[in-house]
Amino acid sequence: MKKIIALLVGMVALGVQAQAQTQTAGVPASTNIPGQKYPQILPDNRVVFRVKAPDARKLQIDLVKKYDMVKDTSGFWTVTTEPVVEGFHYYSLIADGVATCDPSSQTFYGMGRMASGIDIPDKDMDYYQPKNVAHGQIRSVNYYSEITKAWRRANVYTPPGYDESPKKRYPVLYLQHGSGEDETGWATQGKMDFILDNLIAEGKATPMIVVMERGYATNPTAPVSTTGGMASNVFPEVLVKEVIPMIDKSFRTLADRNDRAMAGLSMGGFQTFQTTMTNLDKFAYIGGFSGAGRLQPGADIKQAYDGAWSDADAFNKKMKVVYVSIGTKEPERMYTGVNGFHQALEKAGIKHVYYESPGTAHEWQTWRRSLRQYAGLIFK
Amino acid sequence: MKKIIALLVGMVALGVQAQAQTQTAGVPASTNIPGQKYPQILPDNRVVFRVKAPDARKLQIDLVKKYDMVKDTSGFWTVTTEPVVEGFHYYSLIADGVATCDPSSQTFYGMGRMASGIDIPDKDMDYYQPKNVAHGQIRSVNYYSEITKAWRRANVYTPPGYDESPKKRYPVLYLQHGSGEDETGWATQGKMDFILDNLIAEGKATPMIVVMERGYATNPTAPVSTTGGMASNVFPEVLVKEVIPMIDKSFRTLADRNDRAMAGLSMGGFQTFQTTMTNLDKFAYIGGFSGAGRLQPGADIKQAYDGAWSDADAFNKKMKVVYVSIGTKEPERMYTGVNGFHQALEKAGIKHVYYESPGTAHEWQTWRRSLRQYAGLIFK
Repeated sequence: MKKIIALLVGMVALGVQAQAQTQTAGVPASTNIPGQKYPQILPDNRVVFRVKAPDARKLQIDLVKKYDMVKDTSGFWTVTTEPVVEGFHYYSLIADGVATCDPSSQTFYGMGRMASGIDIPDKDMDYYQPKNVAHGQIRSVNYYSEITKAWRRANVYTPPGYDESPKKRYPVLYLQHGSGEDETGWATQGKMDFILDNLIAEGKATPMIVVMERGYATNPTAPVSTTGGMASNVFPEVLVKEVIPMIDKSFRTLADRNDRAMAGLSMGGFQTFQTTMTNLDKFAYIGGFSGAGRLQPGADIKQAYDGAWSDADAFNKKMKVVYVSIGTKEPERMYTGVNGFHQALEKAGIKHVYYESPGTAHEWQTWRRSLRQYAGLIFK
Repeated sequence: MKKIIALLVGMVALGVQAQAQTQTAGVPASTNIPGQKYPQILPDNRVVFRVKAPDARKLQIDLVKKYDMVKDTSGFWTVTTEPVVEGFHYYSLIADGVATCDPSSQTFYGMGRMASGIDIPDKDMDYYQPKNVAHGQIRSVNYYSEITKAWRRANVYTPPGYDESPKKRYPVLYLQHGSGEDETGWATQGKMDFILDNLIAEGKATPMIVVMERGYATNPTAPVSTTGGMASNVFPEVLVKEVIPMIDKSFRTLADRNDRAMAGLSMGGFQTFQTTMTNLDKFAYIGGFSGAGRLQPGADIKQAYDGAWSDADAFNKKMKVVYVSIGTKEPERMYTGVNGFHQALEKAGIKHVYYESPGTAHEWQTWRRSLRQYAGLIFK
């Protein structure tokens, strides 16, 4: 009996020790609700999730891969994941079959709803950290759209010094989020404000205004598409006819094509090519991050966008920067789509910068890296 | 048998009719994820909630009162609540014992976590709707706090015309959220931008800058309180020594006490009295919405805040506006606390404006109404 008690005491002590190690080794994620200790990121990038739910029957964490949580005697459910790749990931708590939010996490508009998120530190994360440099501001701007007959919102980054230099005018980058995200994505998930603040402080980027628009726009009078088509998508029209004039009126912009860029991620990349390639008199810079021009399989790139690429020399002379990027770990379909587009541009003699983000997927780390590069190339 | 079939057909027809009526009569809440049809608000302010969860065992909507949802054959769970009072309410979806978010709702930082919310239209809601008037901007500002050794964030409202009049200076209202909320609350839940835009457009409020700060501040070097005390709470110090100088440097403020106001709701109201009453040389306007000065039961108000109220005449001459408000449907303890404070001020001869918001609880509708009044009283 003594032996058994000693064994039990030993097991408990080991258990306590193991728990203590887990607790001291992990660091609360920066994406947690302030003060929440979990999720915790371990040194090898495994993540410990923890949810209090004494009455639950089954809980899972869905981080693309689904992990079953296990309940302890005090009503807490926990799970430790496999190592998670660096950068920001949306995730869900699946409770009773409902994909919803982890109460310990901040929420982020992604996947077409408010989702939990976790940001795994990157070795190379210095460029998107807040530092002791001059900071820009993110401004929320509301305006009425006659085209869509609705109030819309944009987030606008003004660079450090904007208010202190009331005569100075700035170039403008229109920067779009992806499908299922909104105008908050680039600042909140993307850290675009810190990326720009730091680049500008180092003299690596020209101070610029960055406009992040809602992105979804349908014509309320258009017949509803029964084929899932884009007939009622009027985003390019809203951007060019309403947003740009509103921004040029409300902010001290340099309102000419040589000082106007556009870029976007995923859906926003497609929107960027859709908008700029049909308005080449208004944009001198094009960026597509994990989303670029749409080419039908086997289609001739020289026929695309009303033949804008049929004369490579003329196009190259007209455009200052065309930028295309993709993560090496993106889904096959996305990688081959963007890489194929890059090859088609290459073959057609269209000058462009092509970048592959090593080890990152169809996620924000690919797009933070892309923005860091792109912002350093434009307005030079 | 025929009779039974006829009865069944009749019941099904009635059911379909009832369902059709429910569906056509309801209006998607403005707080839904764009495009989501549920929650729907019925004309009598009952709310229909609907969640897809084919595998769930038990789902509830927690809107202070808990409602059990019922599953239909297609895997959708629905419930229709009793009539809900006008204004904004936080709510939870309880899935498998976890209080979490309704995937169809936007989320709002409240209750110390990201919560779902529903905004029931008010008869008198015109004053917080976006209109075709000049609009201010909400700006997100990051700054490092030496006192708390951490990055902090404030949301700053700049009034219409701020950028167009680069020499003009403005008075500043410091406006604080409640416990479990953050710097986003006043703009997102409170609609403070539209309230100010509309008041300014009608000439009922002086154009002003409004600063909404994070609100939580603890001294990292202070010993951790073991009694739940406020010893490490350094918010008043952060506001006065760090936030005000930062705002006066970054924005074109009128940096004197006659052009500086403070107000807050609930916890923010207590913080307002705590900050202003100990810094009367810095503020000429005080507002407490559902939260005001703290008086111990039976305590003499003339002893409070180092005797600042011992000379009513001197205080009345010094301060331009003291404002205290409460909703008539607030919990007894809160109502008697604020109402008792109002009576103590009255008895001590301290001039102040006292307002009871009819029919509203310890919620945003009380505070929207209070801000509408308070913003019209200050800086005159």
